[in-house]
Amino acid sequence: MDENTVFVGKKGVMSYVLAVVTQFNRGAAEVSVKARGKAISRAVDVAEIVRHRFITDAKVRSINISTEEVERKEDNSQTKVSAIEIVLSK
Amino acid sequence: MDENTVFVGKKGVMSYVLAVVTQFNRGAAEVSVKARGKAISRAVDVAEIVRHRFITDAKVRSINISTEEVERKEDNSQTKVSAIEIVLSK
Repeated sequence: MDENTVFVGKKGVMSYVLAVVTQFNRGAAEVSVKARGKAISRAVDVAEIVRHRFITDAKVRSINISTEEVERKEDNSQTKVSAIEIVLSK
Repeated sequence: MDENTVFVGKKGVMSYVLAVVTQFNRGAAEVSVKARGKAISRAVDVAEIVRHRFITDAKVRSINISTEEVERKEDNSQTKVSAIEIVLSK
């Protein structure tokens, strides 16, 4: 995975906020925040908290939504899940 | 509220999909899908299902994320919540 990508999952919002802030503080010009399914709301929280509270010169450069196919391990069936990518840049 | 806006809340995804499809079928050139907090993931599902399954010539014209202040009724305190607006256009 790209080193400038933070994949938002089920942990608390602030652990992802910290990950994004750390990337910027290491000199990244942009950081991509990605999530799928129910974690999408949390990814939006992460982007909003980063740019309003921590890296106030960060801007939302782009937001993309998409649909990904995921394999369910129980029965090997394919299921679809929505995804989001929010790119923040300084 | 704007008649071309669908506010996604706690109902099932398909009721919002139907609302968006109905707007387009009534001749709307664009429909705005809005949500706050945990409903943000559902709003992304709504947009993805509409454009992949029902209105296949619909495009994502813009996506905006923001932070809104909400008043909590219990104690009249202000709390912040993330919001999304996805504009679909034909």
